[in-house]
Amino acid sequence: MAKVNENYAKLPGSYLFTEIAHRTARYMEEHPDAKMIKMGIGDVTRPLVPAVLEAMHDAVNDMSTSENFHGYGPEQGYDFLRNAIVENDFAARGVDIAADEIFVSDGAKSDCGNIGDLFDVDNVVAVCDPVYPVYVDTNAMAGRAGDYDEAAQNWTNIVYMPTTAENGFCPALPERDADIIYLCSPSNPTGTVLNFDQLKVWVDYANEHDAIILFDAAYERFITEENVPHSIFEVPGAKTCAIEFRSFSKTAGFTGARCGYTVVPKDLVRDGQSLNAMWNRRQTTKFNGASYIIQRGAAAIYTPEGKQQIEDTLDYYRANARVIKEGLEAAGFTVFGAVNSPYVWCKTPEGMGSWEFFDLLLTKANIITTPGAGFGPSGEGYIRLTAFGDAEATKEAMQRIAQLEL
Amino acid sequence: MAKVNENYAKLPGSYLFTEIAHRTARYMEEHPDAKMIKMGIGDVTRPLVPAVLEAMHDAVNDMSTSENFHGYGPEQGYDFLRNAIVENDFAARGVDIAADEIFVSDGAKSDCGNIGDLFDVDNVVAVCDPVYPVYVDTNAMAGRAGDYDEAAQNWTNIVYMPTTAENGFCPALPERDADIIYLCSPSNPTGTVLNFDQLKVWVDYANEHDAIILFDAAYERFITEENVPHSIFEVPGAKTCAIEFRSFSKTAGFTGARCGYTVVPKDLVRDGQSLNAMWNRRQTTKFNGASYIIQRGAAAIYTPEGKQQIEDTLDYYRANARVIKEGLEAAGFTVFGAVNSPYVWCKTPEGMGSWEFFDLLLTKANIITTPGAGFGPSGEGYIRLTAFGDAEATKEAMQRIAQLEL
Repeated sequence: MAKVNENYAKLPGSYLFTEIAHRTARYMEEHPDAKMIKMGIGDVTRPLVPAVLEAMHDAVNDMSTSENFHGYGPEQGYDFLRNAIVENDFAARGVDIAADEIFVSDGAKSDCGNIGDLFDVDNVVAVCDPVYPVYVDTNAMAGRAGDYDEAAQNWTNIVYMPTTAENGFCPALPERDADIIYLCSPSNPTGTVLNFDQLKVWVDYANEHDAIILFDAAYERFITEENVPHSIFEVPGAKTCAIEFRSFSKTAGFTGARCGYTVVPKDLVRDGQSLNAMWNRRQTTKFNGASYIIQRGAAAIYTPEGKQQIEDTLDYYRANARVIKEGLEAAGFTVFGAVNSPYVWCKTPEGMGSWEFFDLLLTKANIITTPGAGFGPSGEGYIRLTAFGDAEATKEAMQRIAQLEL
Repeated sequence: MAKVNENYAKLPGSYLFTEIAHRTARYMEEHPDAKMIKMGIGDVTRPLVPAVLEAMHDAVNDMSTSENFHGYGPEQGYDFLRNAIVENDFAARGVDIAADEIFVSDGAKSDCGNIGDLFDVDNVVAVCDPVYPVYVDTNAMAGRAGDYDEAAQNWTNIVYMPTTAENGFCPALPERDADIIYLCSPSNPTGTVLNFDQLKVWVDYANEHDAIILFDAAYERFITEENVPHSIFEVPGAKTCAIEFRSFSKTAGFTGARCGYTVVPKDLVRDGQSLNAMWNRRQTTKFNGASYIIQRGAAAIYTPEGKQQIEDTLDYYRANARVIKEGLEAAGFTVFGAVNSPYVWCKTPEGMGSWEFFDLLLTKANIITTPGAGFGPSGEGYIRLTAFGDAEATKEAMQRIAQLEL
C-alpha cells in the first residue's frame, strides 16, 4: 500500500490570504461602489521594462528558426545569464562569486522550498518571527518542524526568533543550537534590514556551530542605506556557511515571468559533502532549467539600458514606500521598514489587534492590507502595507488614512 | 551542526551523457572533418510553430502595459490553459478530468521528481528496466532506493522490472508487492507502448494493492496505433490509483520554453489523504506557477491553427522514425519502437555490447547514439536512436549504416 508523507496532514490551513480575500469580498458585496486600494499582496504592478521586452521578443524569434532554436538548456542556467549575474550582482560589489556557484531557476520560492532536499530530517531549523511562511511550511512538509501547536500557533521543533521593535528587528542568537537558520534582509514582512555588523554576528555564529544560513535577498534592490549588505557574501566567512536566494521578481517585475537564482559557494561543505555539488545534482535531476525566453529577458536587465530602466521602476516603488511611511507617520502611526524595502510595517493603534486594524482600514478607508499576525505570533500588533501599487492610489490611500478618526 | 541528506552521497556519478560527450569529443578531435549526425539526446530541433510564437509575442506585449501586465498567477496554472487541456487532451478522448485535477508546471521532469514529496520514505518503488533515470535517482535521493550495488548496477530496495524483447516490452507484475510503480508509455527509452489490456492489468493490480502508478505520458502524441491509451485515465479504475505526467516538450517543441502538467485525480486517496489536495499544497508552497508567457504559448497549441501546425511538426519527426526503423531493418538489424514513438530501440549485433556498438557507429558511421546500458542493466544489448533530428541527416545516417561492414 502506498503510504503518504504524513507531515502534510499536520499542516494547518493556509488561511491568511484566503481570509483577506473573504473579508474583502464580503465588504465589497455590501458596498459595491467602494473604491478599494490594494496594499496587501506583495505583487508588482508596473510593466516589464523595454529592454526586457525586446530581449524576450528576440528570444521568441530565435525559437522560430531551426538555426537559432534553443531546446534543452543547461539546468544551471545559460552562461550569458550566469556571467552577467557574477559581474553585476557580485564582482561590481567586490564579491568574488564564480559562475558555477550561480544556479538560475524559475524563482526564489521554488529554490527556498527545494533547498530542503539537501538536508537531513534531523536538523534544528530557526526562523525569524514574523516570517515568510514558505520557510516554515516547507520544513513542516519535510518533517523537521515537529507538530503544530494550535494554541501557540507555532511548531514544536522550530526555533522562533522574535524580530520586533523591542529588539530593533535584529533577532537574538537562539538559546537552542540551530543547524539551519533562515534570514531575510530586507525582511519580508517587516521591511527592516540587518546591517553589516548584525549580519556578521550570524555568519560568525554559523561558522562556529557548523550551521548553515539560508539567506533570502529577494528585496536587496530596495536597499538605500550604506553599510547594509546586498549579499551575505559581502560578509567575510559567509562562503563557508551560507546559501543565498535572489529573485528577478521584485528587481525587474518578473513575478509572472518567473526567474531567480541561488548562490551555493563551493567552499560550503558539511559532513564532507559539497553543498554546491549536491544542489547541482538536485537541479540536474529534478529540474530542466529556466525557460530560454525568460533567461534572455533576465539578462537584459544587466545591459546599460536595462539597468537604467529597472532603476526607474524601482524608483517608482521606492517613492511609494516613502509616501506610505511619511503618510502614516504624519497620521500618528509608528512605522518600520520602507527605507530599504517595498514593505511598510505599521504598529496598530494601542490595544488593537492586527485583524481588527485590518478590518478598520478595510471598512473605513477601503484599503486592503495584510495583518501582521498572519506572518507569525510576533507579527500581532502590526500590519504590512506594500509599495507595489499605483502611485496616485498610494497617495490617495494616505489621504484617506489621514482623515480617519481613530 | 547542519546535517546533509546522506542519500546524495550514495548516488553513483551520472556518467551516461558525460561519457557520450567525452567519447564524441575525443573522436572529433582526431577527425575534425567528420560530419557527425546526432541521434543521441532526445531533444527536439524544429522551431516552435507560428501559432505558439504569435501567442508568446502577444503575451510579452501584455507585459508591456500596466493594464495587461500579469504578475503572480495561480500556482496551478491559468484557467485558459487548464480548461484547454481538459477539453482537448481528455474530454475529446472521452475522459472525464476536471480543471482542478490539472496542475500546470515548468515541465514533466520537475513534476516527476517533486511528486516524491508526497510519499513516505517507506514505500517500495518499482520501475521498468531500462528506464528514464529520473525515476530512480529521485527516489534514491529521498532514501527509498536503499544502497547502490556497483556490481549489479542497481539499488537494493528498488524493484526492477525487466522490459525487453523477451516479454514483448510489457513488464511482468512484480513478485514483491510494490507501492509506487512508474510506467512510461510510449516508453523512454524503448519506444514501445502498453496497449489497453496491458495497462489495465497494472491498473487492476494497483487498485488491489492500494499502490499508486506514476504514469509518464510525455510521448503520447507519437501514438499511431489504435487500442493504445494516450492517457492512463482511459482505463477504468485509473482515477483511484494513478497520477499522470504530461509535457509540451515533445508535443510542441517546448524543451527550451518549459511547460508541462500533471493530473492528480480527486478520487486518489491514500491513508485518508487526498493526493490532489496534497499536490495542491505542495505546489502552492514550493512553486509559483509557470511563466505567463509560456502558458500563453502552450494554450495556442489547442487552437485550430496550432493543432494543425504541431501535427505537421510531429509528422516530420514521425517520418524520421519510420526512416530509421526501415533503414535499420533493411540493414539487417532487429528494431523495436518507432511506430508509436520518436525513439528507436535497436538490438546490437550478436555478441556486441551497447557501448561497443555505440563506438562502432561513432567511428565508422559518425553517428551519435545512446547505449542502452545507460538506461539500466536490461538495456545492455541495445542502443537508442532518436527521430528528433533533421530529415536529410536522418536519411544520410541510414545510408551510412547500410554501407557499414559489420
